[in-house]
Amino acid sequence: MQLSLSLPDWLLPAGELIFGDDVAAMAHAVALSRRNVQEGGGPFAALVLDAQGRVIAAGVNRVTEQRNSVLHAEMVALMLAQRQLRTHDLGSIGRCTLVTTCAPCAMCLGAIPWSGVSRVVCGARSEDAEAIGFDEGDKAVDWAAGLRRRGIDVAADVERDAALEVLRHYAAQGHPLY
Amino acid sequence: MQLSLSLPDWLLPAGELIFGDDVAAMAHAVALSRRNVQEGGGPFAALVLDAQGRVIAAGVNRVTEQRNSVLHAEMVALMLAQRQLRTHDLGSIGRCTLVTTCAPCAMCLGAIPWSGVSRVVCGARSEDAEAIGFDEGDKAVDWAAGLRRRGIDVAADVERDAALEVLRHYAAQGHPLY
Repeated sequence: MQLSLSLPDWLLPAGELIFGDDVAAMAHAVALSRRNVQEGGGPFAALVLDAQGRVIAAGVNRVTEQRNSVLHAEMVALMLAQRQLRTHDLGSIGRCTLVTTCAPCAMCLGAIPWSGVSRVVCGARSEDAEAIGFDEGDKAVDWAAGLRRRGIDVAADVERDAALEVLRHYAAQGHPLY
Repeated sequence: MQLSLSLPDWLLPAGELIFGDDVAAMAHAVALSRRNVQEGGGPFAALVLDAQGRVIAAGVNRVTEQRNSVLHAEMVALMLAQRQLRTHDLGSIGRCTLVTTCAPCAMCLGAIPWSGVSRVVCGARSEDAEAIGFDEGDKAVDWAAGLRRRGIDVAADVERDAALEVLRHYAAQGHPLY
């Protein structure tokens, strides 16, 4: 038995993509989130980078298209990166970073320690997603401190304005909120 | 692009399965968790039932076989049920129940409200999984109250001893903990 999840071909990078800093990586993730909205998806994207800043995998929100509430951008990116590197623990191959255009919801936050990434870079804040009507779930107020206690570093507000602009554009068009 | 997740054929029920109460459904889930250990997987299983107690989907832990940290039993069962019913919101088709042989970890707990189930039935407790070395993640002490505030009912300790016996058997054999 197979559970096959369909992902857009434009998620595949054209050749090798390496980003020198968080801002450059986030700008790429935000561009993917914008493209996902244009294609009828949710306004969220994520990347998994290796220690050299190389893109191992990219994900976008596929909840409505695939009728699958698990397929947040972060979950897609983490699952693809694990397939690419052939391990359920990305930490076993080195220090990996999850770049996400919005702070993780409760599900994705819970998934992060299991994935083996050692760093999370966030664009928009949880309150930005909630301001346009998305639900981030029941998270501790200081969820970032919880990740740090597990040895996972968190950077917030990276290209927040650009990420926020995609969220607002999505909401202004009356797309579904879930 | 496809992300194909392989699941064992024995997860498919032989014909229609309907359970008249939580204990009967949990006994079936525990049997699946035991089978999963025999087949080299983790000691966890889950079911999604419709309002009549009919099994819509079954899931088992596939983390190590599929090298995918997302594939906890609950996530597999929820994704399969959504595919079966062609919706990312199981609540849109009626009241569905998630039966899980162990209280959900932080990731699965976060996934539950997004899935649309209206009831969760748990076998072993979080502390039972942690006692043998699994990590349940950063959950609120009263996580069940959080689900209830969202209108999701929680039943605990259903066939706990049977579920616990599978966990202990797994740990005693020295299988991987993650």
